[in-house]
Amino acid sequence: MSGRISIIGLGPGNALQITPQATQALANVTDLVGYGPYVQRVNAPAHVVRHVSDNREELARARHALEMAEAGRHVGVVSGGDAGVFGMASAVFEAVQNGPASWRTLDIQVVPGVSAVMAAAARLGAPLGGDFCVISLSDNLKPWLVVLRRLQLAAEAGFVIALYNPRSHARPWQLADALEHLRHYLPDSVPVAFARAIGRPDEAVKIAQLAEADAAWADMSTLVLIGCTASHLIDRPGGQLPWFYTSRKVEAD
Amino acid sequence: MSGRISIIGLGPGNALQITPQATQALANVTDLVGYGPYVQRVNAPAHVVRHVSDNREELARARHALEMAEAGRHVGVVSGGDAGVFGMASAVFEAVQNGPASWRTLDIQVVPGVSAVMAAAARLGAPLGGDFCVISLSDNLKPWLVVLRRLQLAAEAGFVIALYNPRSHARPWQLADALEHLRHYLPDSVPVAFARAIGRPDEAVKIAQLAEADAAWADMSTLVLIGCTASHLIDRPGGQLPWFYTSRKVEAD
Repeated sequence: MSGRISIIGLGPGNALQITPQATQALANVTDLVGYGPYVQRVNAPAHVVRHVSDNREELARARHALEMAEAGRHVGVVSGGDAGVFGMASAVFEAVQNGPASWRTLDIQVVPGVSAVMAAAARLGAPLGGDFCVISLSDNLKPWLVVLRRLQLAAEAGFVIALYNPRSHARPWQLADALEHLRHYLPDSVPVAFARAIGRPDEAVKIAQLAEADAAWADMSTLVLIGCTASHLIDRPGGQLPWFYTSRKVEAD
Repeated sequence: MSGRISIIGLGPGNALQITPQATQALANVTDLVGYGPYVQRVNAPAHVVRHVSDNREELARARHALEMAEAGRHVGVVSGGDAGVFGMASAVFEAVQNGPASWRTLDIQVVPGVSAVMAAAARLGAPLGGDFCVISLSDNLKPWLVVLRRLQLAAEAGFVIALYNPRSHARPWQLADALEHLRHYLPDSVPVAFARAIGRPDEAVKIAQLAEADAAWADMSTLVLIGCTASHLIDRPGGQLPWFYTSRKVEAD
């Protein structure tokens, strides 16, 4: 019997933001594979086997899932947000490409989810109203100079910039360096939002201008959104956070 | 009594890809506002008033929604995919910024959705495995030269490029021009996917290398995904479409 792999995005963490398609897919798995906190988040029947692994072991985890599928299991590979955005989907296909030919015959489905950037944007207003880019600030898999160059080109393009993985214990200085770099290419007044754990009980949001934005406000659960010259903050009464939106209209240079 | 606005992303069009949060929000509205096909897609009770409008009338539509909310209605403003990505969210906040101060006191919530780019990526494999950007090819609200410059910078940055609104009756030549422009900055072998109406009954997918990609394959319902040098096609047996994925790893320049 041939098994299956469902690569499933669990959404940002709020139970109301997981799609019925993801819920259905989860209901059919025999095994769950993923980073511990995501595997634990799934409300699965007792017979489902949970294979938790540490962060940064994506490729080993992907191979394990493929081996189990080949043995006839139906494996759910789970990520937070959307599995295609700095989640497990790419690791699974990388393992397929470099693995035995038989893996290419497996039934592999990817179930999309609400990514962290969409949830953060919705919480803030409409910061992604124009063209935008999504960059992982992790330099585990790419040189830091490549990250800096991408930030510069993104700023020059006028993209709103969404930063995943901005800061962790193992990567404490990168976000401050990135913000300092961007100050050369963007006006000081550009709005920057730090959107932490959106949709979860420990949600927190901070908004500042680029000149004042402080990398210390971010941690592993933060999505950082950096506006462009078409981005605006709309002040609101009563001490509420301003709305952060980006105009759809772009003037000529 | 003060009204409310819920700006709701309906997902790509498959009923299994709309979040419970969006379904709940839709269940509470008194009025629905949006582009005709999206308003018609909502399965609402008979008492809900549907205000359909034509495409490209976003700002007038947004003002109408705000006026109704001020009059005490609970207005659902709907977009396909995620309302924050080339949907109605930005138009609503633009109207707020330029409208009466009273609009800033309104209760406005944005409910995120699965955007077309996430659904298309999931259907294809993991094309967004690295950093990526999302660009609307419409030049209704920005000069075409800005679009071309952004494409160049995105290619130089090594971003995978997702193109919304690639082609319509009113904009027949832009996609061909964009692809021709990108051929100066990207290798001929880079994979390009045309993902049409993903998750809907008339879904269609076509994949080619950049050298062969033909703008005629796209229409208004197509999302075009252009890979980078870290993107790969994995051939599969039995005439199935190849998987399209982008490696998470980036080498130094």
